[in-house]
Amino acid sequence: MPKINAERLLSNLRRFAQFGAYKTGVHRPTYSREDTDSRRWLAQQYEAIGLQAHIDGVGNVFGSPRSDRRLLLIGSHAESQNYAGWLDGALGVTYGLEIARTFAETPDCAGLPVAPVAWADEEGHYVSMLGSRSFIGDIDEAEIDRAVNVDHGLTLREALRGAGLAGVPRSLLEPERYVGYLEAHIEQGDALEASSKRIGVVTSIVGTRQYSIVFHGIQNHAGTTRMAIRRDAGVAATMLAMSIAKRFPEVAGPRSVWTTGRVTLEPGAPNIIPGRAEMLFQFRDSEMPTLERLDLTLRELVEETAIKTGCRAEIERTESGRPWHMDPAFQEAIENAAARHAPGAHVRMPSGASHDAQVVGCKLRAAMLFVPSIGGISHHWTENTDDVDLVLGCQVLADAAETILRGEYM
Amino acid sequence: MPKINAERLLSNLRRFAQFGAYKTGVHRPTYSREDTDSRRWLAQQYEAIGLQAHIDGVGNVFGSPRSDRRLLLIGSHAESQNYAGWLDGALGVTYGLEIARTFAETPDCAGLPVAPVAWADEEGHYVSMLGSRSFIGDIDEAEIDRAVNVDHGLTLREALRGAGLAGVPRSLLEPERYVGYLEAHIEQGDALEASSKRIGVVTSIVGTRQYSIVFHGIQNHAGTTRMAIRRDAGVAATMLAMSIAKRFPEVAGPRSVWTTGRVTLEPGAPNIIPGRAEMLFQFRDSEMPTLERLDLTLRELVEETAIKTGCRAEIERTESGRPWHMDPAFQEAIENAAARHAPGAHVRMPSGASHDAQVVGCKLRAAMLFVPSIGGISHHWTENTDDVDLVLGCQVLADAAETILRGEYM
Repeated sequence: MPKINAERLLSNLRRFAQFGAYKTGVHRPTYSREDTDSRRWLAQQYEAIGLQAHIDGVGNVFGSPRSDRRLLLIGSHAESQNYAGWLDGALGVTYGLEIARTFAETPDCAGLPVAPVAWADEEGHYVSMLGSRSFIGDIDEAEIDRAVNVDHGLTLREALRGAGLAGVPRSLLEPERYVGYLEAHIEQGDALEASSKRIGVVTSIVGTRQYSIVFHGIQNHAGTTRMAIRRDAGVAATMLAMSIAKRFPEVAGPRSVWTTGRVTLEPGAPNIIPGRAEMLFQFRDSEMPTLERLDLTLRELVEETAIKTGCRAEIERTESGRPWHMDPAFQEAIENAAARHAPGAHVRMPSGASHDAQVVGCKLRAAMLFVPSIGGISHHWTENTDDVDLVLGCQVLADAAETILRGEYM
Repeated sequence: MPKINAERLLSNLRRFAQFGAYKTGVHRPTYSREDTDSRRWLAQQYEAIGLQAHIDGVGNVFGSPRSDRRLLLIGSHAESQNYAGWLDGALGVTYGLEIARTFAETPDCAGLPVAPVAWADEEGHYVSMLGSRSFIGDIDEAEIDRAVNVDHGLTLREALRGAGLAGVPRSLLEPERYVGYLEAHIEQGDALEASSKRIGVVTSIVGTRQYSIVFHGIQNHAGTTRMAIRRDAGVAATMLAMSIAKRFPEVAGPRSVWTTGRVTLEPGAPNIIPGRAEMLFQFRDSEMPTLERLDLTLRELVEETAIKTGCRAEIERTESGRPWHMDPAFQEAIENAAARHAPGAHVRMPSGASHDAQVVGCKLRAAMLFVPSIGGISHHWTENTDDVDLVLGCQVLADAAETILRGEYM
C-alpha cells in the first residue's frame, strides 16, 4: 500500500496558501499574479517528481507520467474565491501532487501512473469551470472572447495575456488515455462534523439553477411621492423574497437549498424610490423533478409579485447545471479505503456544491472524496480542517487510486 | 405690478439645462465642470443686470443689489442629482434671476432690492445643503475637511480646488441685511396635478430620519449549508423590510412616507450566503410626535428581527432633520398673489422633500412656492412641468416678492 508523507503534505498545503495569503485564508483570483505564480510553482513540483509538466492555454496545470498505461487524473482547482479559505480547491491539487510523489517513491506503485492536475477558474471569476470545460471540449473561442471578470470587468483575453498564456494551445482530453478522475475537496458544509464522520464518499453533485430576476417600478422622490401611488421595485423584490421563504419549504426536497446572494436597487440613493431591483437567486437539489418543481414555483411567485405590486418582472435563468451522479465502482474504491483507515467514520453523501468532477465526469469515470469543514465554514478566510483529517483524506484517496489503477474496479 | 418676461424666463431655463444636458434632463453634480460653468454663467447674468456678482468659497452664487434697504433673497440650488431633471433647483435659481431683472426694468419696482442666489450642493453629492448651511454658519472647516463625494470618493477639498474655489472665503449671513428668503421649486410629487392645482403654497417641510441598518449573519457556501443552520443576513434584511411594510401603516401619519433606497449584501456573490446586509432606510413626516413614534417602531422591529433570525443588528441614525414651518406672513403673500393670477388653482401643502429654505429659515423669515410636476416625476431625467405653469409660478413669486419688499407683511 502507498503510504503518503503527512508532514510533506501539510507543508505543501501551507506553502500553497502563501500564494495570495489573506489573514488565515487566501485571496487568489484566477490569473492574478498570485494565481499565476502558484501554477508555475506547481509545474516545478510536478517536474521535480519526474512528471512532464505543462500549463495549457487557460492555465490548467498537468503533470503527465511517462507511461504507456492509462492514467488516473487526480486534482481540483488552484484559484480561490475572493478573500476565501486556504483549502477549498488547493486541497485536491495538493493531494494530487502528494499521491503522484508517493506512488513514484513506492517501489510497488511506481508503475501506476497518477497524473496530477490543477484546473483553472472553477470559481468562475471569468467562466465557472473554465479549465475543466475547456479540457473536455465544452467551450469555444467565442465564449472565451466574450468573457469578462465578474468583479472588475477585465476581459478573459486580457487576463490570459497578462498571465503569459496568449497563443498557448488549450489541452483537449483524449478519453482513451485515462482510467478516470478523482477529486478531493473540503465538504463546505457541516454534515460530516455534525455526525462525527471524517470522510465523505460523494454520491452525486447537486444541480444548480441560477436566476437574474428584475422588477421594473417607477423611480421617484422618496419624500414627495405618496405611499399609495408608489411602484417601488425594491418592495417588489422584498415581497418575492418573502414569498419564496414561505412557499419553497412546501415544495422543496429535504436537502434543497436556496439563496438570494445579491440585491441591487437602482439608483441606490436613500432619498429615491428604486425604479429597478435585481435579485441574483439560486437553488440546488440532486433530483431533477425537485429542480423542475422549484423552477415552476419560482416563476409563479415572480408573476404573482408582479401582479400584486404593479412592477413589471423579468426572470432569466443564468445557470442550469443538471444533478450528476458519481461512478459507483470508484465510490466503492473510496469507501473501502475509508473503511480501512477510518472504520465507522465515513459516510456516503451528495455534494451541495458544484465541482470540476461533474464536468470531467461527462467524459471520464469520476468520483470525489470530502474531508470535514470545521464549523461548516467555507468561501470565507476562516475556513479550516483539522490536520489529522487533511492527512487521512489524502491517505484514503491514495489507497483508492491504487486499487483503481490496479484494475480491481474496472 | 412687476410683469415678468415669459419668453426670457423659459429661454434662460433652457439655457441653464444645457450645462450637463443628459437626454431631456441634466447630469450636473456639484463642482463638476458643468456645474462650475453654470455658476460662472449665472454670475455673468447677475452682473449684466447691474448686480454685484460673487461666487463664495463653497460655490454659492450671490447677486447683490447696490442698495441700503434690506434685501430679499430669492433662489434655490444650481446642481442636479445624477442623471436627473432639468428643473428641480434650477427652477428657483432662474426665477431669482428673472425676478431681479424684472424689478430692475420696472420703474415702479427698481428700488425694491431682490438678491438672487444659487446655493451649492443641496443635493448632497458631498454634504446635503452645504451651501445654505455654510451661509448660516452651520458648518465648520473640520466637516468640510472630512467630506467626500458619495459616488466616487473625491474629497470635497479636492473638488473645491478643481472648481477654482480653494482659499476663497465662504460668505456668512448678516441677518440684519435681509428681509427674508423665497424659494420656488417643482413639487416633486403628484398632489398638485392630481387635484388640478397649479400653485402650491408650502406650509412646512417634513422632517427626515435616515438610518443605516446592518445585520451580521454567517457567510457560507450557498450549496453546502443546510437551510436549517443558516444565518443569512440578507434574509434578516428582507424580514425587516416586510415587518416595516406591515407595521408602519399602523403607526404612521396620513402623509408619512418611508423608503428603502439601497440594500447591500456582502460579499454579493450568487453562490455565497450573505454574511452582512446593510439597508439604507428613511422616513419623513411633518409632525415631531409621528417621527418619534416611527423611530421607536423601527428600533423595535430591528430588535425583533435580530432575535428571530439570530443575526446581530446595528442601527445608526444618519440624518435627523426636524420638521420646519414656513413664515405665516410670507405664505399669505404667496397665496394672495396666486389668488390674483390663478384663482381657485392654488393650495396650501407641506413639502415632502428637504430644501435650502429649511436651513435659511432658521435665521431668516422664509417661504416656498411649488409648481406642478408632470406625473409627479422628479430626480429622473423625464422630470417636467408645463411651460404655462413655469411662467405662472415665476409671476406669482414676483408679486409676492413685491408685496413683501413693500413691507405689507412685515
